[in-house]
Amino acid sequence: MLVVKKFGGTSVADKERIFNVARRCIEDYKKGNDVVVVLSAMGKMTDALLAQAKEINPNPPKREVDMLLTVGEQTSVALMSMAMDSLGVPSISLNAFQVAMHTTSAYGNARLKGIDTDRIRNELEARKIVIITGFQGIDKMDNYTTLGRGGSDTTAVALAAALKADQCEIYTDVDGVYTADPRYVKNARKLDEITYDEMLDLASLGAGVLHNRSVEMAKKYGVQLVVRSSLNTSEGTVVKEEVSMEKMLISGVASDKNTALISVIGLEDRPGVAFKLFHHLANHNINVDIILQSIGRDGTKDITFTVDEDNADETVEILERHRSGSLKCQKIELDKSVAKVSVVGAGMMSNPGVAAKMFEALYDVGVNIKMISTSEIRVTILIDEGFTNKAMNAVHDIFNLGEE
Amino acid sequence: MLVVKKFGGTSVADKERIFNVARRCIEDYKKGNDVVVVLSAMGKMTDALLAQAKEINPNPPKREVDMLLTVGEQTSVALMSMAMDSLGVPSISLNAFQVAMHTTSAYGNARLKGIDTDRIRNELEARKIVIITGFQGIDKMDNYTTLGRGGSDTTAVALAAALKADQCEIYTDVDGVYTADPRYVKNARKLDEITYDEMLDLASLGAGVLHNRSVEMAKKYGVQLVVRSSLNTSEGTVVKEEVSMEKMLISGVASDKNTALISVIGLEDRPGVAFKLFHHLANHNINVDIILQSIGRDGTKDITFTVDEDNADETVEILERHRSGSLKCQKIELDKSVAKVSVVGAGMMSNPGVAAKMFEALYDVGVNIKMISTSEIRVTILIDEGFTNKAMNAVHDIFNLGEE
Repeated sequence: MLVVKKFGGTSVADKERIFNVARRCIEDYKKGNDVVVVLSAMGKMTDALLAQAKEINPNPPKREVDMLLTVGEQTSVALMSMAMDSLGVPSISLNAFQVAMHTTSAYGNARLKGIDTDRIRNELEARKIVIITGFQGIDKMDNYTTLGRGGSDTTAVALAAALKADQCEIYTDVDGVYTADPRYVKNARKLDEITYDEMLDLASLGAGVLHNRSVEMAKKYGVQLVVRSSLNTSEGTVVKEEVSMEKMLISGVASDKNTALISVIGLEDRPGVAFKLFHHLANHNINVDIILQSIGRDGTKDITFTVDEDNADETVEILERHRSGSLKCQKIELDKSVAKVSVVGAGMMSNPGVAAKMFEALYDVGVNIKMISTSEIRVTILIDEGFTNKAMNAVHDIFNLGEE
Repeated sequence: MLVVKKFGGTSVADKERIFNVARRCIEDYKKGNDVVVVLSAMGKMTDALLAQAKEINPNPPKREVDMLLTVGEQTSVALMSMAMDSLGVPSISLNAFQVAMHTTSAYGNARLKGIDTDRIRNELEARKIVIITGFQGIDKMDNYTTLGRGGSDTTAVALAAALKADQCEIYTDVDGVYTADPRYVKNARKLDEITYDEMLDLASLGAGVLHNRSVEMAKKYGVQLVVRSSLNTSEGTVVKEEVSMEKMLISGVASDKNTALISVIGLEDRPGVAFKLFHHLANHNINVDIILQSIGRDGTKDITFTVDEDNADETVEILERHRSGSLKCQKIELDKSVAKVSVVGAGMMSNPGVAAKMFEALYDVGVNIKMISTSEIRVTILIDEGFTNKAMNAVHDIFNLGEE
């Protein structure tokens, strides 16, 4: 069996943890498996490197930032190989250039284009554990690139796809995917299995266990993902195309407080107004989430939408800049104290009552709903941030998610 | 004009020094020159990385040590490029893989085999300052290698040779090459020019300004070297094939306390004994310096030689191990409290009185000579370590080296 195992920065933050990971990989190796390990930079090393860069140049060239950051994972993989050597197991560390991890040239946010697997296969055939730098790539000019947020997960999944691995294990500080965040929902329960689509909706809605890009790639190439803890040996959650057990109506509840609500009130009701508004935002790489358009007073219309809270101020600035031109309106409002709460479940496709049941739960605990958005396998509502936990628990309970 | 400038670790140890180097390079660039900069790892970073490795594995695999160490120079070059950017000058950092700095696979002590110059030339043509990692290379399997002691100097000279640079400037913490170490000889004088051969003898004899490998390579490819200070703008010392001024008899006096004297007394006087002795040492990579063989008592012979003090104990162990076999002898003596003092000068080839004059100076100040070794342009004597400064000053004075 060929297994790709990915460990994040906290799992390799110090000597003790490095050896924990080494032993864990060796255990798998000694069963006769081919083991490929993907590592992030140690602990806060990436942050420290970025701080060092900013001290030299508050706005450093992105190409050089990636040149600097890639030393982080290279340090991790070299030390890991030394740890395995001291445990008597042959291994080799490879960075993005040695693997040949080809990406676009979008420094800081590059996309993987292809991976050469020859070197990896040769080293595996020589019965070595192959330890590979996550997060980084090289462009066609041999410049280093980095993959952006969640990059190491993406590296692991891409390697699993390229190597046709039997499994890709993503090690985190939680036991797996839960029906809700156990910090806020007491009887949250770990799921044994979940579909790619459910995982995608959970990730984008703030469950935060896996980055969307890695799940999308796993779905595209049919890579079986396992999310499990680096701290214990419990089984974790398998993410795959179809769950084998009878489909549950709802898989989980997720919340996301990093969201802001922007209302553009009293826009002229002319064709193309919505296009112009979102076109301006797209030009500044601002992702818009839920959009709601309603008819305003006196032949105008209102457009309300959510963005990540980090982008909220910039979004309002952009809109204000165009207010005298293409975006004439009466007022622009910003509300940062909102949160999204979502229920996700492949089972709801064939069951129209889910949204109504969710609204009922919120009504029962007196939580007001500001916006509603639905997809085939998801219902999302926007509420006051202060009610997040109350809403999560109410929804979790009404669908009996705490019960096996 | 194309100039290669090499700065060591202390020159890039912190933000302020990085900017000093950046400004110095930019000054040259703004004169219209093509500028290639070679950097070592910052300050004590290489030592810190090695300590980190040893913590994980007291005897880490050499391939992984090089994988780890190469992050040091990569950090330096990325930060340097960011500094130049903040000073408004375009630059690009390149590591051993991006340049394609081909070496042998001898991890920790690799030899340069060839350098691809296409990328560098393209970046220079685009009027960028090109900042390159010293000390590191890649082997034919794309593994990282390091060049061993003085490696960054070698990188700089090799780049100057490959690029047919007009000059290769090695920046250090001294103003240039002196007639003697100014810390010990008060009236030591900076030389304007020196030949490759003199520099080679001075380097190997403990002057320590340039590493032998870089001087050998400079001589082989006719690269004009300049040794100068990174702290001030004084002219430095030019190292080249022939010095243009009338040849001085003596260029300088050097001393080396890192030496130990080993005497093997009462060896059987059979053919091949000397061969066997030095063959055993060569098998353990121990370099022997001065060798003296004399006739001992009762038909035996004595062999006396010097090694680096670091290797002294191991050398004695090796000899003791073979004492019952191929190296039967009466006793083995070790003296670590010795020092080498040498005078070097291309002019002495045609002047036989140099050695005698040196011995006269030592006799005048009462210093006993333990061994003598000479080459065409060098006389080296071995003395008690405690007399090193006295001997240096006496020799420096008798040749009037303090006078212009």
